[in-house]
Amino acid sequence: MKVKQLMSKDFVKIYEDYPIEKVIKLLKEHKKFSAPVLDEEDRLLGWITTIDLLGVTEFKKSIKEIMLPKEEVIIAYEDEEAREVVLKFVKYKVVSIPVLSRDDRVVGIVRNCDIVKTLAKLYEIPVYNIFKKLHEHLDIDWNELMEAAAIVTKKMSGEDITPEDYEKRIKNTTFGKAIWACGGLENFFVGLIEIGMVALARRLAKKRR
Amino acid sequence: MKVKQLMSKDFVKIYEDYPIEKVIKLLKEHKKFSAPVLDEEDRLLGWITTIDLLGVTEFKKSIKEIMLPKEEVIIAYEDEEAREVVLKFVKYKVVSIPVLSRDDRVVGIVRNCDIVKTLAKLYEIPVYNIFKKLHEHLDIDWNELMEAAAIVTKKMSGEDITPEDYEKRIKNTTFGKAIWACGGLENFFVGLIEIGMVALARRLAKKRR
Repeated sequence: MKVKQLMSKDFVKIYEDYPIEKVIKLLKEHKKFSAPVLDEEDRLLGWITTIDLLGVTEFKKSIKEIMLPKEEVIIAYEDEEAREVVLKFVKYKVVSIPVLSRDDRVVGIVRNCDIVKTLAKLYEIPVYNIFKKLHEHLDIDWNELMEAAAIVTKKMSGEDITPEDYEKRIKNTTFGKAIWACGGLENFFVGLIEIGMVALARRLAKKRR
Repeated sequence: MKVKQLMSKDFVKIYEDYPIEKVIKLLKEHKKFSAPVLDEEDRLLGWITTIDLLGVTEFKKSIKEIMLPKEEVIIAYEDEEAREVVLKFVKYKVVSIPVLSRDDRVVGIVRNCDIVKTLAKLYEIPVYNIFKKLHEHLDIDWNELMEAAAIVTKKMSGEDITPEDYEKRIKNTTFGKAIWACGGLENFFVGLIEIGMVALARRLAKKRR
């Protein structure tokens, strides 16, 4: 995924010659906490936030006197990996990051909330989907898979659970909940792989009988 | 994980009798975009943002006339599941959420950037760690695991890769990159499980020889 697919084109453009009143009006109207300050060709000159504008009463000031200058703005390029921009949010704790094309025009904004939305999707994947995929792709019978899951659960946590209850549980569990319950991603994988292997071993044993 | 573990205690408290000038000064000083408005016992009365305060020149106004009233503020409780608060960020697209104790006092703030930081951690787990865990927990010889991985890669993507190169690759790959490369979490799991199974099947075959 590239930054381009993550960014939003819904942002306020502030041009360098806008009077302060106009900037305030625009940010208030569009309910934005910040916006890029641009030259006439949409190239980045700086970054203005509602914090910088708080209590500004000298309306004759130029926006360029208040803004964060370009050199200090955290930016991203539209063809960068989305992952890189996520790391910038973590590192610099900013609320939004302007996205530039390679010819240095501002083409979008990535907001913290866009990142949360994208990252959270992974956590919300139902565990049921993962089992379904195992069942289909590895050609393990669904009931055998649930039986194996109950066996592995018993072995790992000591909990006595029927295959039917296990099925019910994974219908209500997301990937995020599951890795938390297992004590981490790595443990979740190990558990799942063990389930697959137990299922295959049991199938093999049945065939031999 | 509970909201309590995710929240920050570093937030600005605005009391209902603070003059507007003082509110502006506090938010500017602490570089905060928003803050809870509280009564004398730290109970939530409302929410104030720097957008609401933009261009406010009538300093005699009470903060209560400008703030978002309590009923409209998105809140979380400290003993709620962290997951729930993440979903609130996705749904309401807010920048931060005040955290309340069960006796309705504001005890912290969850910010968008705290969420990004926590969620991003999962994506940054090295794939190498997952293989290490497989190797240790399922007692599969490391070299056999890498050989199986090369075989499965060849089968799934047609790519010819040596076990040595596979090992190098997973040293430089994170979970986030890997699920993207596989076309989703489910596919990543299936691939990994297939690798485990191929490794086990090969061990079995060797023993029989």
